[in-house]
Amino acid sequence: MTGKVFLVGAGPGDPDLLTVKAARLLQQADAVLYDDLVSPEILKLVSPFAQLHNVGKLCGKKKITQPEINFLMVGLARSGLEVVRLKSGDPLIFGRAGEEIQALREAGIEYEIVPGVSAAFGAAASARIPLTDRHVSPAVTLLTGHRATGNEESDWRKFVASGATLIIYMPGHQYGGVSARLKAAGAADHTPCAIVSRATTHRQAIHSTTIAELHLAPHLPGPTLLIVGDVVRLADLEQQQAVVEGMISRAPDLASVLFQTTENEGTVA
Amino acid sequence: MTGKVFLVGAGPGDPDLLTVKAARLLQQADAVLYDDLVSPEILKLVSPFAQLHNVGKLCGKKKITQPEINFLMVGLARSGLEVVRLKSGDPLIFGRAGEEIQALREAGIEYEIVPGVSAAFGAAASARIPLTDRHVSPAVTLLTGHRATGNEESDWRKFVASGATLIIYMPGHQYGGVSARLKAAGAADHTPCAIVSRATTHRQAIHSTTIAELHLAPHLPGPTLLIVGDVVRLADLEQQQAVVEGMISRAPDLASVLFQTTENEGTVA
Repeated sequence: MTGKVFLVGAGPGDPDLLTVKAARLLQQADAVLYDDLVSPEILKLVSPFAQLHNVGKLCGKKKITQPEINFLMVGLARSGLEVVRLKSGDPLIFGRAGEEIQALREAGIEYEIVPGVSAAFGAAASARIPLTDRHVSPAVTLLTGHRATGNEESDWRKFVASGATLIIYMPGHQYGGVSARLKAAGAADHTPCAIVSRATTHRQAIHSTTIAELHLAPHLPGPTLLIVGDVVRLADLEQQQAVVEGMISRAPDLASVLFQTTENEGTVA
Repeated sequence: MTGKVFLVGAGPGDPDLLTVKAARLLQQADAVLYDDLVSPEILKLVSPFAQLHNVGKLCGKKKITQPEINFLMVGLARSGLEVVRLKSGDPLIFGRAGEEIQALREAGIEYEIVPGVSAAFGAAASARIPLTDRHVSPAVTLLTGHRATGNEESDWRKFVASGATLIIYMPGHQYGGVSARLKAAGAADHTPCAIVSRATTHRQAIHSTTIAELHLAPHLPGPTLLIVGDVVRLADLEQQQAVVEGMISRAPDLASVLFQTTENEGTVA
């Protein structure tokens, strides 16, 4: 009998922010295929009898390709297993879920999508930033700062002009470059922004600044998101500062975290 | 001793899509303040000893104002209670969370934000629509179709021009009006779109169409979201059609659901 694949969102990091359904599926699954950004605390929920496959595209030096992931997922389901394809955040955003869904459909494998708390909402909760406000921002746009995929660069001018709060996934550490790109797209120098690092985890850190001074920001460990827009001014800045200071006073810990970052700066959703 | 307020996301509808943390907080809370759109199945998790307050702004004929909600929330916390302020979807989007946070801060009440699965991601999961795609859409914009608040109408032209997938919260039943507004903003007639009704619940329904034919769509019961963009073409249309047909064949059920809709068409997040 053919098995089934669940495309499951692992949420922003804290295992407590898994959905009830995701937590149950992880305990029941025969096989779990997970990305690099899924935390070890979450993987602890998986049954010791289940197969556990790291299909992070940056795992170690070996790069697993999307067709290889699809092949593995389909093969496991065909052998009758209940498979969880675990993606950080929500599975349907910035995670190439469309390609995996197409592979499952072509193979005739039953599948189900289990939404998760997107990294954007985890970051906003950690930084206490309301993403929309009747008076300040009518909308939110989620986009990616990642430029290494050979895609054409999307035009940020239209995103900036819309007045929506922008949440930039995978901004990387070239903050000066991101700042220049935002300014070239028409964003004002004084526009507030916040880098949110490892949102919802014990090691979260937040740095509030403006686009003009973004290039001076400390390199916080990944995964990070950048929230841009006037709503950042509504955040609880005192609390944020305390978090960043707490972070910096634990320098050895920060150093080790920074080291991990280079390996883990993959797909966040 | 002063209590604490948790601003908690209830997710898109299915109680199984609450986060583990939200489910636990609901069981522990001394008082729960909830919106109209939070489902009865979710409220069943609340302890029978807890105070339960419906603060939905459209509950019955009585309208509770935002200052009244803030007053109640602060008062309960001041009396030493652990209070859950439960909002459908995620608490930080389209839910006036900023105003509640400000009230808590001014009153010196400790608070925490617990993110949830936003209605947008619930709808996308139900309709099996990948929200971004490397080749089709670089970004997602969440906006609201609600125009009854006396706000100036936001300019949809910039949202349409950005090429991002649009997710319109609270599109209402004036589909012709929404279609005209999208066309006036520059959206092409053939742009695919999907109305997703009661996403992630047993009574979910999905109708796929195009902007040109949106005005012909059946009035599906609220809460609904409208997903607009070429990614809708990537959805599993056969499955969607089956869902809509199943829905329509259960006409009496649909009628009762439609009846509830007028009361419940409130804030979705």
